[in-house]
Amino acid sequence: MGIVVQKYGGSSLSDADAIKRVARRITDAKKAGNDVVVAVSAMGDSTDELLDLAAEVSPLPPARELDMLLTAGERISMALVAMAISDLGLTARSFTGSQAGVITDDVHGKAKILDVTPGRIRSAIAEGHIVIVAGFQGVSQQTKEITTLGRGGTDTTAVALAAALEADVCEIYTDVDGVFTADPRIVPTARKLDKVTYEEMLELAASGAKVLHLRSVEYARRHNIPIHVRSSFSTLEGTVVSGSINDPDSDQSEATMEAPIIAGVAHDRSEAKITVVGVPDKVGEAAAIFNALADAQINIDMIVQNVSAAATNLTDISFTLPHSDGQTAMTTLASLKDRVGFESLLYDEKIGKISLIGAGMRSHPGISAKFFTALAEAGVNIGMISTSEIRISVIVDQDDVDRAVQATHTAFDLDADEVEAVVYGGTGR
Amino acid sequence: MGIVVQKYGGSSLSDADAIKRVARRITDAKKAGNDVVVAVSAMGDSTDELLDLAAEVSPLPPARELDMLLTAGERISMALVAMAISDLGLTARSFTGSQAGVITDDVHGKAKILDVTPGRIRSAIAEGHIVIVAGFQGVSQQTKEITTLGRGGTDTTAVALAAALEADVCEIYTDVDGVFTADPRIVPTARKLDKVTYEEMLELAASGAKVLHLRSVEYARRHNIPIHVRSSFSTLEGTVVSGSINDPDSDQSEATMEAPIIAGVAHDRSEAKITVVGVPDKVGEAAAIFNALADAQINIDMIVQNVSAAATNLTDISFTLPHSDGQTAMTTLASLKDRVGFESLLYDEKIGKISLIGAGMRSHPGISAKFFTALAEAGVNIGMISTSEIRISVIVDQDDVDRAVQATHTAFDLDADEVEAVVYGGTGR
Repeated sequence: MGIVVQKYGGSSLSDADAIKRVARRITDAKKAGNDVVVAVSAMGDSTDELLDLAAEVSPLPPARELDMLLTAGERISMALVAMAISDLGLTARSFTGSQAGVITDDVHGKAKILDVTPGRIRSAIAEGHIVIVAGFQGVSQQTKEITTLGRGGTDTTAVALAAALEADVCEIYTDVDGVFTADPRIVPTARKLDKVTYEEMLELAASGAKVLHLRSVEYARRHNIPIHVRSSFSTLEGTVVSGSINDPDSDQSEATMEAPIIAGVAHDRSEAKITVVGVPDKVGEAAAIFNALADAQINIDMIVQNVSAAATNLTDISFTLPHSDGQTAMTTLASLKDRVGFESLLYDEKIGKISLIGAGMRSHPGISAKFFTALAEAGVNIGMISTSEIRISVIVDQDDVDRAVQATHTAFDLDADEVEAVVYGGTGR
Repeated sequence: MGIVVQKYGGSSLSDADAIKRVARRITDAKKAGNDVVVAVSAMGDSTDELLDLAAEVSPLPPARELDMLLTAGERISMALVAMAISDLGLTARSFTGSQAGVITDDVHGKAKILDVTPGRIRSAIAEGHIVIVAGFQGVSQQTKEITTLGRGGTDTTAVALAAALEADVCEIYTDVDGVFTADPRIVPTARKLDKVTYEEMLELAASGAKVLHLRSVEYARRHNIPIHVRSSFSTLEGTVVSGSINDPDSDQSEATMEAPIIAGVAHDRSEAKITVVGVPDKVGEAAAIFNALADAQINIDMIVQNVSAAATNLTDISFTLPHSDGQTAMTTLASLKDRVGFESLLYDEKIGKISLIGAGMRSHPGISAKFFTALAEAGVNIGMISTSEIRISVIVDQDDVDRAVQATHTAFDLDADEVEAVVYGGTGR
């Protein structure tokens, strides 16, 4: 009998009726002959409500206590799911992250999973129970403090449980039917992908596709756990994330010529662009800038440095970063002005990132040209460009994002003949 | 430096502002030179909201999962209180019942505390932190499952912590100024008691006074922990519960002649009365009835059996029990009808219990007579009577409760010269 790990996000657990529907799904999997372990997020918007409450009490709450607070959300949902299962005549045992053996480092608010020791889960399975585990949380190895994994952490919990239990598959239930070639809210003719490699999914997640959390894909890739992304609102097959573009046994690699060149078009409106204007073009200036930003714990995404104008020997350095880090970054940079000797700083939040992702682009020349042409014909101006082996990203004006995604999707023949996608609700964590 | 344990109930933690006020109170105690350990209940009505949610999901949720669910309430309030303290510039560490070392038996929903092993609390105190502990909850000794102590459990958590930490005092903060000679909502001239013995407080709590949970008083008495019941809305001194009526060193015992004869008048509207009519007056009939009720886990309070009428050799047995057990008790008794051979069953929910409590009544004859006379003059009919060493209780018509309390209070000269009592809100758990 195989083990199936399932994950349900907040949008699948929005109220009592939603919880009952999820319980039926879980019991169906059990009745089909599987041992079932489920990771759950907090109900609906309850995490945001707890954050609001914390903000009312303290403008800067201690991270340890914030983790203690937020973990109450999953505790509530897991107990309710277990009750709903019991009401269907099967038995369930809920476990907190700590009880489930999710061991993390001690970085409150964004802890990393170090180990999973699922002794209590195995015992409960052996006794015939369905196991419900609080997602998003763990306990620190050294200090035995309650930690949280950060937004999207429940995806990672589910994959980590699947790896520790050597599960057959990790099913991530969400409010869309799977991974699409583009966001169906922007491109109604977006197609659902039946399969996608870990690498492509990593690039899609890193480029703004919200269906799977980046860290969960990294974890699944490292432990070779197949992820099945599917809807909790339908019984359709979703998207299976598995295999590597570098693995000769993988479908995607074997049949590159037949496989689609492009997996999808992702977009991201959550970044801002900072330009450091008039940086003296000499050794170490860029290093000084980015070291200072790294010290301030700021995650940089794209970086572009222009060739310096010969006359002035000055260059401009632009980079993108999350909106939320914008204020800190500008303050940090301003304090460097005299030392680095740049002229000024520009800040722009009205940007969007469009990314074209596909393992096939490695062996197909001309993808960039086709991408840029499609954008040009749609009247979209390109601000920055960056590429990886299987991704091309451009920064455009935020108002152009929808048009850019649509034009790119069409240019690469990704449109389905008819509308496939259904979007059911918000997105969980 | 002494340790002070404080307890705040749900009505003292109803929203962010209330939590901030509690935090100021806690930091005041710390700044006054004490080590401070605080037990908190869930915010306001949040426990009832969680119960409603559980009822929506399952009509009969498993007790283990119900405990898992409800313990989220204290987790939320303790984290918020710790945050609010941090916002005032001091440091606090919150701990769940399990982390705090509150070890219980494994009876979900009404677990008993077996031991408290406050290692983490002591470490946190040694590091200079204020400690906030989730009330109402613990972890079972054998199975390591999360348990709850039942309604009012946070009082017991506070007293148990005080005992384990050898605290100087356990302060129970509530929404009234202390223990009163009667419920100030019924008797506006009720007086606050400065001191009351454990025995009197036990009888008051058992007789319907809601200010302290019965089990917490038992625990305090067993470990000789003074309880200071006081308002979280004022800085007035409240009521100190300490000393025994049998202890020659206690004020109450030493100075019986000077001490008030009567501690107070309690009332209780939560009971119902069942009368088993026409029970054959032979050996073993009463035992059969009450054994069956005990097997059904029903708590009986008062029992009265009339002398049987000589002509018929039949007797009536009446007893009182909580409303909530009424249905089960009637079903249980109906199934005994043929075996016991009684005539019929009567059920009455429209009753109230009035109890007069005082250590002084042991040495003062005529208390009962004065009590019954006061009721008679107020036109209140007495349905049942029961007595203990320091208590006289009567059952009256529910509509007569207020009048009976007022008349008794006046008859025993308990009225204050002016109105002392202020009632601030609801009652916590």
